[in-house]
Amino acid sequence: MPETLFKVDVNKPMQEQEVPGHNRWHPDIPAAASTDPGTDFRIECLDWTNGQVRNDDSADDIRDIDLTPCHVLSGPIHVNGAEPGDILVVDILDMGPPSGPGQQWGYTGIFSKQNGGGFLTDVYPDAHKAIWDLRGLYATSRHVPDVEFVGIQHPGLIGCAPSHDLLARWNRREQALIDTNPDRVPPLALPPLPQNALLGTLTGSEFERVAGEACRTIPPREHGGNCDIKDLTIGSRIYFPVYVEGAKLSMGDLHFSQGDGEITFCGAIEMAGYIDLGVELIKGGMEKYGMTRPTHMPIFELSHLQPRYSSFLVFEGVGVSEDNTQHYLDLTVAYRQACLNAIEYLKTCGYTDEQAYIIIGTAPVEGRVSGIVDIPNACVSLYIPTEIFKRPVIPQDVPSRVAREARLPHAPGEPQINQTRVEFRG
Amino acid sequence: MPETLFKVDVNKPMQEQEVPGHNRWHPDIPAAASTDPGTDFRIECLDWTNGQVRNDDSADDIRDIDLTPCHVLSGPIHVNGAEPGDILVVDILDMGPPSGPGQQWGYTGIFSKQNGGGFLTDVYPDAHKAIWDLRGLYATSRHVPDVEFVGIQHPGLIGCAPSHDLLARWNRREQALIDTNPDRVPPLALPPLPQNALLGTLTGSEFERVAGEACRTIPPREHGGNCDIKDLTIGSRIYFPVYVEGAKLSMGDLHFSQGDGEITFCGAIEMAGYIDLGVELIKGGMEKYGMTRPTHMPIFELSHLQPRYSSFLVFEGVGVSEDNTQHYLDLTVAYRQACLNAIEYLKTCGYTDEQAYIIIGTAPVEGRVSGIVDIPNACVSLYIPTEIFKRPVIPQDVPSRVAREARLPHAPGEPQINQTRVEFRG
Amino acid sequence: MPETLFKVDVNKPMQEQEVPGHNRWHPDIPAAASTDPGTDFRIECLDWTNGQVRNDDSADDIRDIDLTPCHVLSGPIHVNGAEPGDILVVDILDMGPPSGPGQQWGYTGIFSKQNGGGFLTDVYPDAHKAIWDLRGLYATSRHVPDVEFVGIQHPGLIGCAPSHDLLARWNRREQALIDTNPDRVPPLALPPLPQNALLGTLTGSEFERVAGEACRTIPPREHGGNCDIKDLTIGSRIYFPVYVEGAKLSMGDLHFSQGDGEITFCGAIEMAGYIDLGVELIKGGMEKYGMTRPTHMPIFELSHLQPRYSSFLVFEGVGVSEDNTQHYLDLTVAYRQACLNAIEYLKTCGYTDEQAYIIIGTAPVEGRVSGIVDIPNACVSLYIPTEIFKRPVIPQDVPSRVAREARLPHAPGEPQINQTRVEFRG
Amino acid sequence: MPETLFKVDVNKPMQEQEVPGHNRWHPDIPAAASTDPGTDFRIECLDWTNGQVRNDDSADDIRDIDLTPCHVLSGPIHVNGAEPGDILVVDILDMGPPSGPGQQWGYTGIFSKQNGGGFLTDVYPDAHKAIWDLRGLYATSRHVPDVEFVGIQHPGLIGCAPSHDLLARWNRREQALIDTNPDRVPPLALPPLPQNALLGTLTGSEFERVAGEACRTIPPREHGGNCDIKDLTIGSRIYFPVYVEGAKLSMGDLHFSQGDGEITFCGAIEMAGYIDLGVELIKGGMEKYGMTRPTHMPIFELSHLQPRYSSFLVFEGVGVSEDNTQHYLDLTVAYRQACLNAIEYLKTCGYTDEQAYIIIGTAPVEGRVSGIVDIPNACVSLYIPTEIFKRPVIPQDVPSRVAREARLPHAPGEPQINQTRVEFRG
Repeated sequence: MPETLFKVDVNKPMQEQEVPGHNRWHPDIPAAASTDPGTDFRIECLDWTNGQVRNDDSADDIRDIDLTPCHVLSGPIHVNGAEPGDILVVDILDMGPPSGPGQQWGYTGIFSKQNGGGFLTDVYPDAHKAIWDLRGLYATSRHVPDVEFVGIQHPGLIGCAPSHDLLARWNRREQALIDTNPDRVPPLALPPLPQNALLGTLTGSEFERVAGEACRTIPPREHGGNCDIKDLTIGSRIYFPVYVEGAKLSMGDLHFSQGDGEITFCGAIEMAGYIDLGVELIKGGMEKYGMTRPTHMPIFELSHLQPRYSSFLVFEGVGVSEDNTQHYLDLTVAYRQACLNAIEYLKTCGYTDEQAYIIIGTAPVEGRVSGIVDIPNACVSLYIPTEIFKRPVIPQDVPSRVAREARLPHAPGEPQINQTRVEFRG
Repeated sequence: MPETLFKVDVNKPMQEQEVPGHNRWHPDIPAAASTDPGTDFRIECLDWTNGQVRNDDSADDIRDIDLTPCHVLSGPIHVNGAEPGDILVVDILDMGPPSGPGQQWGYTGIFSKQNGGGFLTDVYPDAHKAIWDLRGLYATSRHVPDVEFVGIQHPGLIGCAPSHDLLARWNRREQALIDTNPDRVPPLALPPLPQNALLGTLTGSEFERVAGEACRTIPPREHGGNCDIKDLTIGSRIYFPVYVEGAKLSMGDLHFSQGDGEITFCGAIEMAGYIDLGVELIKGGMEKYGMTRPTHMPIFELSHLQPRYSSFLVFEGVGVSEDNTQHYLDLTVAYRQACLNAIEYLKTCGYTDEQAYIIIGTAPVEGRVSGIVDIPNACVSLYIPTEIFKRPVIPQDVPSRVAREARLPHAPGEPQINQTRVEFRG
Repeated sequence: MPETLFKVDVNKPMQEQEVPGHNRWHPDIPAAASTDPGTDFRIECLDWTNGQVRNDDSADDIRDIDLTPCHVLSGPIHVNGAEPGDILVVDILDMGPPSGPGQQWGYTGIFSKQNGGGFLTDVYPDAHKAIWDLRGLYATSRHVPDVEFVGIQHPGLIGCAPSHDLLARWNRREQALIDTNPDRVPPLALPPLPQNALLGTLTGSEFERVAGEACRTIPPREHGGNCDIKDLTIGSRIYFPVYVEGAKLSMGDLHFSQGDGEITFCGAIEMAGYIDLGVELIKGGMEKYGMTRPTHMPIFELSHLQPRYSSFLVFEGVGVSEDNTQHYLDLTVAYRQACLNAIEYLKTCGYTDEQAYIIIGTAPVEGRVSGIVDIPNACVSLYIPTEIFKRPVIPQDVPSRVAREARLPHAPGEPQINQTRVEFRG
Repeated sequence: MPETLFKVDVNKPMQEQEVPGHNRWHPDIPAAASTDPGTDFRIECLDWTNGQVRNDDSADDIRDIDLTPCHVLSGPIHVNGAEPGDILVVDILDMGPPSGPGQQWGYTGIFSKQNGGGFLTDVYPDAHKAIWDLRGLYATSRHVPDVEFVGIQHPGLIGCAPSHDLLARWNRREQALIDTNPDRVPPLALPPLPQNALLGTLTGSEFERVAGEACRTIPPREHGGNCDIKDLTIGSRIYFPVYVEGAKLSMGDLHFSQGDGEITFCGAIEMAGYIDLGVELIKGGMEKYGMTRPTHMPIFELSHLQPRYSSFLVFEGVGVSEDNTQHYLDLTVAYRQACLNAIEYLKTCGYTDEQAYIIIGTAPVEGRVSGIVDIPNACVSLYIPTEIFKRPVIPQDVPSRVAREARLPHAPGEPQINQTRVEFRG
């Protein structure tokens, strides 16, 4: 087991940890620890809400959650020798939930439209919660019967600190978006917010300055950050752009499993836990590997350990709203329709609306961009592995893919089909 | 081999076939053939452009293409007993390119911004073309060196005829979109167009009426249609909603392979060919299986025969334009950035811009919705299988996932690591 | 579709074809056709028994089969320029059953102990037969209910002609084995047999000479031959050693599907059909690629198109006979036990002995060498994909892999688990 | 993390542990701990040799190893309520190497023919050793360059205690085998051996009695035991027959990875470590699930987490010895030949004999029973994933699976292929 570079006591909030982490992005947040390239280390993480969610059967905690301290992150880790323009290569060696007794659980929240929202918040505006019990590779929930799946664990959020310039770019563009509709609920974007900001060991006037500039952690951006990519799992290798001296790598928002899109907002199976990483540098790598265009992003290699599900039911969606409004090549609307179509189907299998919504958000479902050039409709498809269900979910009242002849009644002992002349193709 | 219900001579355009197909959607297009549920049959198809593209090294044909007769479709096939509200179950039994000598090829076109456009048409406004040679399961191209991949053949377009009501809904919403910017190039959507309409055997005033109402075939819609879903391949079973008496199933736009999104517009490997299908009915199935919500779509089961690629390089994108404009949860912009990031990387491997663009459009790449709730940024990831390349595409100048100890120099014959006390986790 | 180099009329036996094939191995059997390296071509094949098996419900044809003309092969194909020491590279481009109406079927035979036998012939000494209907990628049988699987089509038998020297080696060693127990039923091996030999166009004294020397086609040998490797499927590339001028490639015994081991003797789904191949030469390749040791064999690369099954039930066997006799590192006995254990289990799912035996022989089950060094027991495991069954086959009366907490009754609305101090591993 | 039921200090041999385990099989070895069905727990294990192998570059330890105390096992665990005839359901929840600093390594030994031997001991009679460094999911070795693969961790040995009757059966049959050639080196089987026997807490006359009867742990038997099945990995569920009150489950011989067959004897990557298990009972399950025939064995379900390798090079072997002796349907000889053929090939890629031998023994290679009915030759195939190599291992001097047309030189800008009449199949 590699050395632990960042420790947390899961019973305390991040601000009370011996070495606190942070919950905003800013280049001037001091490093919490440092390491050399070629080293492996362990990082411990709180759940992204700073421990606000309980393992119980009430969703009050989700409804009343305070999002201002989210996400609490572990780090930054200073990588010695890293300079802007380098690539920081990060191997994900291992991860998992905490090891204490009674702590192998996670949760999924459907957030209230008034407080956080979610992808389908117009349809499902109220708070709900499911608790997942984690046992070995598998997750099950007392709130979602007859479902059991293998977890593809991953950090929902990981990335290096932005430079001052990049941070300014982010603030500029997000504020411009907010300004188009400042009163929207939920808001279009989240500006810097000093309230409940945690900036490592910063205090005093330096805290004030940085807290006023630092970006929220909710969206993914050019550094990676909150990408919520479910396949960024154990065994993956990630190539991160480096923007500041020492790279300042931070992470958090550990997920035991997530469906593509994480649609219920905290739609993954959220957990505290640990993550083991190894780091290397490619000096000057950003230039060499084409990572200098304005909206470049990290690149990664998939792990060679992957879930094996082979039977999938696929739902499609196009870019038309329920009120028959036509959108132009809009994958977001199309994905929304695919999700709603899937939920409608799962309801015919005996699930409630919220259970179906949560299944799509947490199980290893795949959301695929199918067509994006056939004006005006984008098409997205949603793949649900049917082996995760312990009840039938495939239409049962049609013949299986059986050959025609086999359906006919046959008199035993009597030839059924006369052998006739055979012709070859062509 | 099942009976051929729809024949074409690939040397003639669709309007000159003995029984012509159609290139618009309308419930009153007469059926070209009929079949009973429980029957298998073969359908022959022209390429979607009615044979306008040549196997040569010039992209003039792409540049000058006439899109008004596209897509030419084979059908409609009347399924006896099918009624609105039923589900038509379609098994894809087989498909392939034509079998004549010298005909195992397909093409990929980057369409001109002035004539068709494509997903990245602002960046790549000029016409380009790649010819693919098809041999057994594999495709290669003299225009894209060192690339070879297994084809996941599929019909880009398949679906039943809409009802009059549904057709009216489509026309209404698409015209409303067009009206927001009628002069845009390329246009926002395509209204009904009598010019070069082909409506089976319809002629005279009935032709005039229907041609004035019938929808274009470009976008996918509630019936399926031009979904361009690459996994709708041999061995899949599709559940189509039925809107008219007899279902009136049509299909075309056969692809030898396609990347998720078909980003260069005719970004797949386009081909003429045949497709073998079997059909069944689930009476009243739409209600039973939740296919009655306004924007429902077909559902399908994946085939149990699938490509096997295991090493992937993944590119990410978020919903920010190159000019730093922030979009709100916009998967389309995010996918655009993921594609551009991937192209930038492939250029560092020696490919031209257009080759890289075509690789992403044709090879079995996956486009995944990663995050869609982290305001304001959607996140999309693009998975490229690295085994399709015959040149190195993984960064070569970092250590592989090798253990630290193994990197140290060792004196042969001498113990390297002293055995020390072992501690177990926990 | 490539040019057909070898044609058959499936309604006639091989000896009556215009250009007859052969059913023995010998370097002096004249080539039936020739081709250049770098060429693709089609070969048509009869079923291995020369058409003796009928699509009916009686196993009399299996019981009374004449094995002397088996296997009938298509070829030899002379590859211009091929010389001993070269490697003949063969790409399998496509294959399938005949295309005539009513001909998409195959059969599986449990051979009588008195006539052919099989792997478990002591347990199942009587003849049985199952007819399989082939539809697209899938096979089903009216004789094996609730089973449906995707076919991995492959030629059971393919290889180049042996040299005179190699042929002599084969005859020598097989006769030596026969001599140890010449009266055994079934026999230990099959010596040259002029009766019903078919040697292409050879006649007269040359026929007599060659028929007296030529090897039977039943066993696989150094040239490949009847290897019955189920993964030698469409998309595979094979490297064959060349022993004679022109290579003289022959093939037959096409299978729609087969379980590892083909345990019922003609345990695959046997069919007539076609196979499309392409050939290349590596001059002097045998030396270069290590194919010169005495018992070398062909090498092949797997296809990138493969079946997708993910849920498997696995049965084990060790090298001990039912009478408690201990064998020394005997994989054969171990595999026998694994098969018998699997059959015993499938009987608890409602299958008859013979149905279970046939399922293991035909479905895409995997037989794996697990341990071969743990004296005195070899261990083999047999993997059965559970998704091929349309009835439950997994033990139903144990909890699924569910977490412990989720099994407890919970009072709705009340917290179930108190959040306590969390400890991290290590 | 579940409660640890069996602890070891890896710095001490098993006999010095606080609660010692055992290294023989006997029903009267006292349980080391007990548990209830429905409980999860952790077991710690020493490496199978009791710590005799060092992490250094000399194979002296392998050469001089004392095999009499092998394998040291953790257990037995008494499962409350288990009775003969039940099935003990065991879920493998997690496993891994010890977590102490510098302890993430394992070893592979080619055993000397004079002391242990191995599958190819006639060819490779001398002792060799490779040390593997384990980092996250991957293993690499300073002794095997350019190889890196994902580990499929598994317990080589796990099973319940035999009854007195079953034990007597084992002793009887193994002694009968030994008696056929008592002086063989290596021996045919290993009789009970009191020397260095460890029987938990047994001492005195009871120790004497049990040590004289107890079976060695080397071979797998009806209870499972040393099966060395590489896919018995994390996420698997095993159904074990129960023979004694309390089941008395034991385990050890943890492997980080292993090729099918574990051919170098301790051919896996051997390690100490921990394993987390959960247990359930199916009362009377042996009868219900067909586990009562004389040579039945455990059954298991595969995990849904599996390695992803897609490009394989496959080697074949038949049942003929190097001296051209023909064996009758002998999978063991066939597997031997497949292994030797693979080694010969890997030598052409720059590996030494021993490196190639070790690669086949440790990497996730698959050994498949291909044909077992084609008298007299069994056929086995060995699948090597080519992605584990960091140097080229596929023949490079043949065209890839490229279409013929694409190989021709083309004049840019000029049409290459005239479009001619297309014919459809059939």
